[in-house]
Amino acid sequence: MVRVVVDVMPKPEILDPQGKAVSGALVRLGFAGVADVRQGKRFELELEADEGDGLSADRLAEVEQMAATLLSNPVIEDYRVRVEQGADA
Amino acid sequence: MVRVVVDVMPKPEILDPQGKAVSGALVRLGFAGVADVRQGKRFELELEADEGDGLSADRLAEVEQMAATLLSNPVIEDYRVRVEQGADA
Repeated sequence: MVRVVVDVMPKPEILDPQGKAVSGALVRLGFAGVADVRQGKRFELELEADEGDGLSADRLAEVEQMAATLLSNPVIEDYRVRVEQGADA
Repeated sequence: MVRVVVDVMPKPEILDPQGKAVSGALVRLGFAGVADVRQGKRFELELEADEGDGLSADRLAEVEQMAATLLSNPVIEDYRVRVEQGADA
């Protein structure tokens, strides 16, 4: 198994009402020094490994496509795909 | 400014219906080899830096407390706090 993490965050130019709400709540709870909060999503995918241990470039391109088509809305969100060490591969 | 990332994921023993839905959708879209998907949240906090560049141990403990009290539900979720390089500190 290979663990791939896809982080999906609102684009910097997009207003993030969830993050704003969290930021306001932190101030009300007495936490000082919080300038900004942005909230996004984190997906952890467990993928079957290719021969060898890792993911081939083709499979990785497939994951990029998953991220662009299903996991994120590319109009308002950026995504980042990274392969974590397949510790228990 | 220091950027701190808090990842909040459902605990392994907790059913994750969002992740299950994503996993099913990926299979229907024709992506093979996806064994499991779990969906969580990612918070990016911009914090004012302490003297020097980073965060003091006290401030970091404060962030842990934010994560435990507001950003996650410790009954069903695990969180992880990490400080990213304060690139534009």
